Amino acid sequence: MRTGAIAGKCQNHAVAQTSQTHLGTPTADSPGPAGEPAAPEGADPALVDLLGLLAFGELTAFERMATDARMAPTLADKIELGRMAAAEFAHFEAIGNELHRLGVDLEQAMAPFVSALTAFHNLTAPSDWLESLVKAYVGDNIAADFYREIAGRLEPEPRALVLSVLADTGHAAFAVERVRAAIASNPVMAGRLALWARRLVGEALTQAQRVAADRDALTGLLAGVGDLEEIAEIFNRIMAAHRQRMAALGLSA
Amino acid sequence: MRTGAIAGKCQNHAVAQTSQTHLGTPTADSPGPAGEPAAPEGADPALVDLLGLLAFGELTAFERMATDARMAPTLADKIELGRMAAAEFAHFEAIGNELHRLGVDLEQAMAPFVSALTAFHNLTAPSDWLESLVKAYVGDNIAADFYREIAGRLEPEPRALVLSVLADTGHAAFAVERVRAAIASNPVMAGRLALWARRLVGEALTQAQRVAADRDALTGLLAGVGDLEEIAEIFNRIMAAHRQRMAALGLSA
Repeated sequence: MRTGAIAGKCQNHAVAQTSQTHLGTPTADSPGPAGEPAAPEGADPALVDLLGLLAFGELTAFERMATDARMAPTLADKIELGRMAAAEFAHFEAIGNELHRLGVDLEQAMAPFVSALTAFHNLTAPSDWLESLVKAYVGDNIAADFYREIAGRLEPEPRALVLSVLADTGHAAFAVERVRAAIASNPVMAGRLALWARRLVGEALTQAQRVAADRDALTGLLAGVGDLEEIAEIFNRIMAAHRQRMAALGLSA
Repeated sequence: MRTGAIAGKCQNHAVAQTSQTHLGTPTADSPGPAGEPAAPEGADPALVDLLGLLAFGELTAFERMATDARMAPTLADKIELGRMAAAEFAHFEAIGNELHRLGVDLEQAMAPFVSALTAFHNLTAPSDWLESLVKAYVGDNIAADFYREIAGRLEPEPRALVLSVLADTGHAAFAVERVRAAIASNPVMAGRLALWARRLVGEALTQAQRVAADRDALTGLLAGVGDLEEIAEIFNRIMAAHRQRMAALGLSA
């Protein structure tokens, strides 16, 4: 099991005491506490990293979706995006509980990923309702596919948690339906939204590379270190699924 | 029972078919569908109004709190405000279910209150983290006191729902603690935040008057029509509780 190998490889250091994680505007000059291990004695640092990344991912997704709900053109749309946001927060709480069970400080586990995820969202702030729908649908699903690839390498218990948090909450159909309808009534929209989706993927990859470079244990969980062929395969699978989703939206990838 | 009297007084008209409520920027010139009854045959229009107002209140509170969470100075603060926001959304869903049970369209029930509540929030957008905390604490509690006054006049079943939705979810202590700490470390803050709270109360009263003028059934539930003395007593009770909360924050009312 790869998880065990990585856990054995990475030594656990004494956990630094940080009472509160202060949130400045992240910049390229402030890499944050990336090198600081968040896992206490006995906890698998790769799993702790994965849960910390997932937790902060859900927390920020919640925040951004709830913010984007303000752009909703109808009450029904506003409720639907609010429901998606609330589901993300419930997932965040589930992961927080699991980290607590493992004896890991939630904030400390999330800290290494604050800068990259905040940068991603700041660089991809939707300018209108359709952009926010495409972001919620395309962005969340690429992230979910990525987490699923990792989950397959976890022990059964954490794997079940990760998969439950990633389970489609039935909201995807809503985004697909709304975007298709918008394109049907205004075909010019398709080009702009396709470009927008491409930008989302580009920014996501940029930030993913930043995280991968900083977090050896997490990267090791995804593939054997230096196993470029395996990483390429994973990447191809994720991009193939992305192209299918773009087609479902009526957009060219 | 006052509720029954009001229900008897207000005739139910055929419910207009509105498939989606479009959300424009509310202006003084667009009073919205305020005069349109949202209650179907048999449903008490005052109760439907109250639930519609509560539902949209919770939905917008959710949205604003989740938005304000972006201003949180620490991850712990961000999580706490996110938790408050998620609790508001759960309340919104509970009210939505009750309206559904009564055979009332949720959007139609909320529609008469969209303009006033949106105006309130637009006119009281917090400019920093402390303002957002004071707004969450002061604003939510004044609204809760107001709903509690009304709930006392409802039949037992809807009363239990309204009171459960208003139950303090334990988050108030968080806001009080944070605001007190900020004032302790910077006493100048107290004057600015006291003014801010006064502005919140003023805007809330302005919008409440707008709603009261439009919605006879709801106003009738609060007090006998024209019973100014009773309305003054309710107002005094709510303001007394508000002054106690301001003192708890370390602010003069």
